Amino acid sequence: MLKLPKVAIQGDTGSYSEEAALSMLGREIEIHHCEHFREVFEMTAAGQTSCCVVPIENSLAGSIHKNYDLLLRYKLKIVREVNLHIQHNLVGVPGVVFEEVSTVVSHPVALDQCESFFEEFPRLIRKSAYDTSGSVRRVVEENHRDWAAIASRRAAKHYGGQVLMTDIQDNKENFTRFFLLSPSVDLPQGANKTSIAFSFKNTPGGLFKSLSVFALRDVDLTKIESRPIHGRPWEYLFYVDLLGGVEEEKVENALNHLREIADFLEVLGCYPRDKKHKKTD
Amino acid sequence: MLKLPKVAIQGDTGSYSEEAALSMLGREIEIHHCEHFREVFEMTAAGQTSCCVVPIENSLAGSIHKNYDLLLRYKLKIVREVNLHIQHNLVGVPGVVFEEVSTVVSHPVALDQCESFFEEFPRLIRKSAYDTSGSVRRVVEENHRDWAAIASRRAAKHYGGQVLMTDIQDNKENFTRFFLLSPSVDLPQGANKTSIAFSFKNTPGGLFKSLSVFALRDVDLTKIESRPIHGRPWEYLFYVDLLGGVEEEKVENALNHLREIADFLEVLGCYPRDKKHKKTD
Repeated sequence: MLKLPKVAIQGDTGSYSEEAALSMLGREIEIHHCEHFREVFEMTAAGQTSCCVVPIENSLAGSIHKNYDLLLRYKLKIVREVNLHIQHNLVGVPGVVFEEVSTVVSHPVALDQCESFFEEFPRLIRKSAYDTSGSVRRVVEENHRDWAAIASRRAAKHYGGQVLMTDIQDNKENFTRFFLLSPSVDLPQGANKTSIAFSFKNTPGGLFKSLSVFALRDVDLTKIESRPIHGRPWEYLFYVDLLGGVEEEKVENALNHLREIADFLEVLGCYPRDKKHKKTD
Repeated sequence: MLKLPKVAIQGDTGSYSEEAALSMLGREIEIHHCEHFREVFEMTAAGQTSCCVVPIENSLAGSIHKNYDLLLRYKLKIVREVNLHIQHNLVGVPGVVFEEVSTVVSHPVALDQCESFFEEFPRLIRKSAYDTSGSVRRVVEENHRDWAAIASRRAAKHYGGQVLMTDIQDNKENFTRFFLLSPSVDLPQGANKTSIAFSFKNTPGGLFKSLSVFALRDVDLTKIESRPIHGRPWEYLFYVDLLGGVEEEKVENALNHLREIADFLEVLGCYPRDKKHKKTD
């Protein structure tokens, strides 16, 4: 029998990370569910799983710096990306109608993303849970007929919940970007986007000089973010995503030029760009 | 009797937002606790409170884009900032010893920030709650002797909890930056830092041109962050913090220059820079 590749993710069956893993790798994978992100990175770095999938930024909640930190610490490489459209659904026990529901359980971030929904139905009490899919499991397994969970359609399906209402998040433009990470150093096919992290001693116009290495070579940036390095006042870590593969001459030259300026430069990965935004199903 | 200024915050008594409000405004204020951020902005914009305090970014969890969105929508101005050192404590019912505790309750973000602590004590079960200070209240009020909450020292004190362990977060460099927001258009005294948001039609080197308006005038940037505008591929919103007040000639010139390039430019506020990092008490 063929052994399926093992992929580590944080969260339960039916989580958005699982959705991202399936959308990047297809159905022929074995998913290893971890409770925490550090475990996800550790397993992959130790070779217990061949790769892992982690969220890196959300269009409302921002970049997950913690996962950038883990990426740098465990020296995994980004080999793919996907932008997942996060659609929250209200999920109850089968047979229940919405009018019976009085308590809504989910991760606080998901609850917060559905504020207008709660304003419309002030009878609903919010209850916090550790994750979105786990809250569907709890509602269904414990047969709470007056409860409902906020989660993905996939979580509803997996745990036998019934979708009572769809697309209940305030902002329809709710996207999470996920990375597929691997210990491999091979350049993935079609790699046309590169993520880097760098820092430099603060000098007047230092950032401008750093960005000039790209602008002077017409290399387009799709993300730039500074992050203060605490304990080192005036020093920043920068995350930049650029269009182009590391083997393209202008990108290679730009990175070599940046090495002259930066104290620290790490290529986090080079991977095919995800141009479309995927909807959760 | 003197009427105290009313300040809106999200969260309970003893929350980190309350800490930030007290550190910026002193003890002579009346705090209005809201359940959600939108309510905080709404109350202040409607004049029901004179100002409000909201978190805008955390050194591990990143920028809170949602609060940037609300800032733009409700047209409040940043009038102060503070960087709060977030120190998590384990808080139980008075008289309890740590060995009795089997369940730890808090906001999932706080639980996640104490991973090493949970690894060290695998007997502890994690339980999710809506906020950190509310979880202390619950532990104490319901007299759960085998539970403890993760929260600030201030929350412990307020609800009569006992600190069983201090500084249990993984990363000692855990800071949250808070803004004091007001509908006022008056420039605060000592304003020497300015926050702006802008966007421009994507043109090659557009970002580089935008930043050149500052570099050419030796205006230092302390934050830059791009955020994709979904639904408008290739368009980004940028957040920039710069050193200098809007009334300084070089800043005024730089902003006027940026207006020539940007489709959209909004000054989010001009305020005194917080140079020190405050510890939570």
